[in-house]
Amino acid sequence: MSVLVVGSVALDTVETPFGAREEVLGGSATYFSMAASYFTPVQVVGVVGRDFPERHFDLLKSRRVDLDGLTRAEGRTFRWRGRYCNQMNEAQTLDTELNVFEQFNPVLPASFVDAPFVFLGNIDPTLQCRVLDQIAHPRLVAADTMNFWINRKAEALRETLARIDLLFVNDAEARSLSGETSTVRAARQILRMGPRVVVIKRGEYGALLLDEQGFFAVPAFPTADVRDPTGAGDSFAGGFMGFLARVGEVTPSTLRQAVAMGTLLASFTVEGFSLERLSDVTPTQLLERFNRLRAMTSLEPLPDDLAIFEDACAARLLEG
Amino acid sequence: MSVLVVGSVALDTVETPFGAREEVLGGSATYFSMAASYFTPVQVVGVVGRDFPERHFDLLKSRRVDLDGLTRAEGRTFRWRGRYCNQMNEAQTLDTELNVFEQFNPVLPASFVDAPFVFLGNIDPTLQCRVLDQIAHPRLVAADTMNFWINRKAEALRETLARIDLLFVNDAEARSLSGETSTVRAARQILRMGPRVVVIKRGEYGALLLDEQGFFAVPAFPTADVRDPTGAGDSFAGGFMGFLARVGEVTPSTLRQAVAMGTLLASFTVEGFSLERLSDVTPTQLLERFNRLRAMTSLEPLPDDLAIFEDACAARLLEG
Repeated sequence: MSVLVVGSVALDTVETPFGAREEVLGGSATYFSMAASYFTPVQVVGVVGRDFPERHFDLLKSRRVDLDGLTRAEGRTFRWRGRYCNQMNEAQTLDTELNVFEQFNPVLPASFVDAPFVFLGNIDPTLQCRVLDQIAHPRLVAADTMNFWINRKAEALRETLARIDLLFVNDAEARSLSGETSTVRAARQILRMGPRVVVIKRGEYGALLLDEQGFFAVPAFPTADVRDPTGAGDSFAGGFMGFLARVGEVTPSTLRQAVAMGTLLASFTVEGFSLERLSDVTPTQLLERFNRLRAMTSLEPLPDDLAIFEDACAARLLEG
Repeated sequence: MSVLVVGSVALDTVETPFGAREEVLGGSATYFSMAASYFTPVQVVGVVGRDFPERHFDLLKSRRVDLDGLTRAEGRTFRWRGRYCNQMNEAQTLDTELNVFEQFNPVLPASFVDAPFVFLGNIDPTLQCRVLDQIAHPRLVAADTMNFWINRKAEALRETLARIDLLFVNDAEARSLSGETSTVRAARQILRMGPRVVVIKRGEYGALLLDEQGFFAVPAFPTADVRDPTGAGDSFAGGFMGFLARVGEVTPSTLRQAVAMGTLLASFTVEGFSLERLSDVTPTQLLERFNRLRAMTSLEPLPDDLAIFEDACAARLLEG
């Protein structure tokens, strides 16, 4: 099954300790699409300006990403300029030019309204709802958000939350959305607002999936070569949703595998600037990392008896 | 087999959003001993002052913690005063009184020199080496350290590192010790300094074990009730070393189980102030958390074929 994404398509200027790039392809919908395209056809809803380079369309189209919902408007494309310092885990935004994105009003082509899997990228929750209004009968709707919307559009965000199945957030967003300081309590609180699954993205520390059944935790894939973290979160969401759309079944087991796939697509993204590395992954490389991730989290069961416990202590405690 | 620990025994005054405690039992050797005591007999090397309450000795002795190496010196016991704010992941030290700990010179009783498993708590690396000088033929030596020693006693610390099998550090310490910004590269660099295993403690994000064979990652056990994080790292080390000493075999599989046990003992510690919760764990509770931790990290294998990949894309990539 295909997956629909609404979000930004941008030109990024990025600087990290490992290099710099000017006006390269970026944006949440872009990273999401490229990651999801390994698994399934993707439909993009977004807007770019007249200055958007033709070659970027070609790259996405070569991956069977359907750009019929990507409007080309009068004006300049959305631009982001940022820098990562030594720790590499937080972007310092130097400049944001919304440009054509400021007047963005998502209108879906007729061919998009039957989308079964939907990802609402990190945009104004009012627009997220407007997209949902146009979709006939989605099977799974996921959304991303950020503190800007949590603080300034709380009411609209509540409406989005009531209409989605799955929310992607980081720890700080989960805490601020719920008012709880513990991530576990925060996630439980969010589950009461609508979504039946919450995925906490923790960057270099991995990801956590929480639902009524419990928890699933996976570490980030330990890559030694982090060159540019831009787009890691959107690649995570793209790998996650693309995988789920491909297998077509949302079960506890496929949700876990989806978290793993999101983690792996993000691990490729951060190894290069822009989509340099993400656009060049082979299925063999992806499967190899999947198997290494499984191996690196596998824990053998303990023997059934209590012989691992200190005898006297165990005896005393079992008495009590 | 038994485990020997050298480190601080302290009186802590702690404040968190969930309450406060004055002059309660604390210190790295204390948390370590209590955690390890679930698995194996423990020998403590340390120092307290004349003011150290008798009831604390009784608590440790009731767990078969051997205090023959705990000197009672003229003067006051080491005291730490700290506070945790909303995020709960970093202690703010308000006051440290070294007192008798300032002149601490570890001298091992004759009954301690055959210790097979040894944990050198976070003390001056010169003293860590002095302890090792007194141990006849240890089977496994682990150590903890901190940025204070990394920056001020670099040379002595190099000597410690050359003599140990396993190092416990957090991300910041690993980076500062190695000069690398990526944790993976940092750990690889540390493996060249002596230890054959590095364990990265990441607090609420879990732990990572790295050796020549590769990685093992485990999330923190997701407890909803974090009341006081003091002692979590030392409880982790105690659970880890106590479990290994108990099973007596250091294999890839027991090392992983040891990381899990460390994680679980830390999860109990943070649920109460001081040793309130850590001293009251039953083997059944520990086994139950172990099984839940296994369940929450288990990832099923993918089908062998490539049918999960988008057909055209997979075909194109496999050609290339």
